[in-house]
Amino acid sequence: MDKTPLVTLTTDFGTADGYVGAMKGVVLGIVPNVRLVDISHQIAPQDVRQAAFALYTAAPFFPPDAIHLVVVDPGVGGARRAIAVRTSGGTLVGPDNGVFSYVMARGEVEAAVALTDPRYHLPRVSHTFHGRDVFAPAAAHLAAGVPIDALGPPVHDPITFPPPLLEVRPGEIAGEVLHVDRFGNVVTSIGCLAWRGDALRLDPAFRQTGDAAGAVCFRADGTTVAVAGRKIGGVCRTYAEVKPGETLALVGSGGHLEIAVREGSAARRLDVRPGAPVALRW
Amino acid sequence: MDKTPLVTLTTDFGTADGYVGAMKGVVLGIVPNVRLVDISHQIAPQDVRQAAFALYTAAPFFPPDAIHLVVVDPGVGGARRAIAVRTSGGTLVGPDNGVFSYVMARGEVEAAVALTDPRYHLPRVSHTFHGRDVFAPAAAHLAAGVPIDALGPPVHDPITFPPPLLEVRPGEIAGEVLHVDRFGNVVTSIGCLAWRGDALRLDPAFRQTGDAAGAVCFRADGTTVAVAGRKIGGVCRTYAEVKPGETLALVGSGGHLEIAVREGSAARRLDVRPGAPVALRW
Amino acid sequence: MDKTPLVTLTTDFGTADGYVGAMKGVVLGIVPNVRLVDISHQIAPQDVRQAAFALYTAAPFFPPDAIHLVVVDPGVGGARRAIAVRTSGGTLVGPDNGVFSYVMARGEVEAAVALTDPRYHLPRVSHTFHGRDVFAPAAAHLAAGVPIDALGPPVHDPITFPPPLLEVRPGEIAGEVLHVDRFGNVVTSIGCLAWRGDALRLDPAFRQTGDAAGAVCFRADGTTVAVAGRKIGGVCRTYAEVKPGETLALVGSGGHLEIAVREGSAARRLDVRPGAPVALRW
Repeated sequence: MDKTPLVTLTTDFGTADGYVGAMKGVVLGIVPNVRLVDISHQIAPQDVRQAAFALYTAAPFFPPDAIHLVVVDPGVGGARRAIAVRTSGGTLVGPDNGVFSYVMARGEVEAAVALTDPRYHLPRVSHTFHGRDVFAPAAAHLAAGVPIDALGPPVHDPITFPPPLLEVRPGEIAGEVLHVDRFGNVVTSIGCLAWRGDALRLDPAFRQTGDAAGAVCFRADGTTVAVAGRKIGGVCRTYAEVKPGETLALVGSGGHLEIAVREGSAARRLDVRPGAPVALRW
Repeated sequence: MDKTPLVTLTTDFGTADGYVGAMKGVVLGIVPNVRLVDISHQIAPQDVRQAAFALYTAAPFFPPDAIHLVVVDPGVGGARRAIAVRTSGGTLVGPDNGVFSYVMARGEVEAAVALTDPRYHLPRVSHTFHGRDVFAPAAAHLAAGVPIDALGPPVHDPITFPPPLLEVRPGEIAGEVLHVDRFGNVVTSIGCLAWRGDALRLDPAFRQTGDAAGAVCFRADGTTVAVAGRKIGGVCRTYAEVKPGETLALVGSGGHLEIAVREGSAARRLDVRPGAPVALRW
Repeated sequence: MDKTPLVTLTTDFGTADGYVGAMKGVVLGIVPNVRLVDISHQIAPQDVRQAAFALYTAAPFFPPDAIHLVVVDPGVGGARRAIAVRTSGGTLVGPDNGVFSYVMARGEVEAAVALTDPRYHLPRVSHTFHGRDVFAPAAAHLAAGVPIDALGPPVHDPITFPPPLLEVRPGEIAGEVLHVDRFGNVVTSIGCLAWRGDALRLDPAFRQTGDAAGAVCFRADGTTVAVAGRKIGGVCRTYAEVKPGETLALVGSGGHLEIAVREGSAARRLDVRPGAPVALRW
């Protein structure tokens, strides 16, 4: 079998130090034919939610046998567990701090283990860099074909964030800002939205919120969007429907309601951050 | 034939979000043995000219069967075409907004098509992320051996920028600033310059400007350079000819006349931007 | 033999220009099956010491047949030599300006040569971009199996930095700040430290300093650390021993004494830079 194993990397290490390089060296030393793909090393330091969202954006487009190594780890050296989670959409390796919440809420969790077996650590484990000493070796051994169960005992309660706000009320969906991207696009918890002719259909993006919210369908014309108390027009299909510099709401590439400024930054104009309230009314 | 296909990536997506990762996942899903090489994801948002210049800097050093995927796409979701262009120096995939101008002006265009065939898109194409849904799949299918003609109908008029200013006059070449790099080096449209003993020979870098300008050769000693009205000494061969902190003009690594400050930033000292006038006199 | 050769890249080129891409294209043109791994392109412009430290952090975790290409080269075009150095821990290619000091001080130097043979340069060598024209081809030819001796004549005196301060005195080790990382962790020259039960053992990290300093072992409780005249408590084992926002000293992941603020920046709080004095007392 000539399948090349694939490991992606998401960290808050930046790229000015040698930390990411050290992790890659460890993986390559264990599984020389691995394919390494950077997702991001520019997660803000210790910003577990930003990492969770970056992974949620990218992971669904990788083959399901990919291994996603994520190291945003404010609790390194403390009591937090190190885990690996096999889901229907890929295998996740990193600290048990909620960083896999969004990805786990979309797929099926098939197995989860704590990374306790020292045979799959580096010989000397530091107190401050489990990315190199615990997580990278675990990802590499998984990529080399070690079964997930070998890495340690099962974990039945991996930590997840409280599900983002998503409430369907008569004529209104209430949500919150989930993420602000590089362009200043404001991504909300109102998803998955999809166009059905002139109507919009909402299927909640995350299973936890889904159980509460359920699907809903409504005509798009006549909608209004409000974010942090400021009103925006209805839901557009493309940036091209407004002029450069104008604010619009639209269904973003991940199926979430987004607020954007064409060729500008909505986050700066509206001064919003993750957690700000959003409403879509019809 | 065991040739590994090669796809380079140039975007304005930054690396703090999962967008680049999503594109890479799409490519790997279609052509698992592809080699992915990042050129840049730090193009300033929507700065098509900066992307065009980065590609022009890097692409000539890749094998001609490389596929260069470029996504700097302010017109996404509007009327701009999505294109693939096969040139003598590589195959280009991206929006039809001029981003391939500099590369196309150097090589021969052998074929150009619009990416309209939905068989080579993702099953669902968003209105905001054609990098993932249209361009990445097109590049991947080309890398997998799909002939360019299969992707859509021919395009005979891909958009190109107006050629940068380059006028050869008696005793003077007039040009403009094309690009400012990370070090603050100011790259001009006066190229391709090359040393011939003590003389400099100019062969215009871009074919469009070349037809107008033609080649010229002149002695290097006694030259002066002016940028945005400020005079600099003659054309040096190396940084080492001036002291750290001094301004100099020299033939840059891409064959263009550059203005630099040794171990400093010429762009900051001279306060110039792309488009500023430059003259080389002898 | 199906071994894939491995070349890592460390530069101060940033990733907004096409320079790194050009270097990768050159390497791939010479050795198509090479594996390229980025260590850093975010070294501050011309900061040779930062590059030396990034390489020192990452290189030990790569297989010893890896080739480490480093281009931080303020002297390009001047009299500085271009070199390749084979050590017990990997082969180094770059300018002879001290950038390999830390890596060379840890391993054994087996061979060093000047990159003078034009057969292993690009056909035209610019005066400003030896990364592309000299160093990338040299690394690629080494990766393709060319023996290091073929690249040019031996070099017996590669340039190295003066060894960082490390003096063991009765009840005290004096050192200096070596590096500040992305998180604001302050890495010192006091290494390699390792825990032995309740005691700490120091084996100097660099051979030059080692000859002067020798190993020492002392009980950890009762230690104090001072950096730039400010006192910090004793050496902790993990971040978790202090509250978020508190300052601590600990043995970092590279075995050096580090000063950190849990979930914060020690460099900002203490306002220290490389070269600031550090003392560990017991």
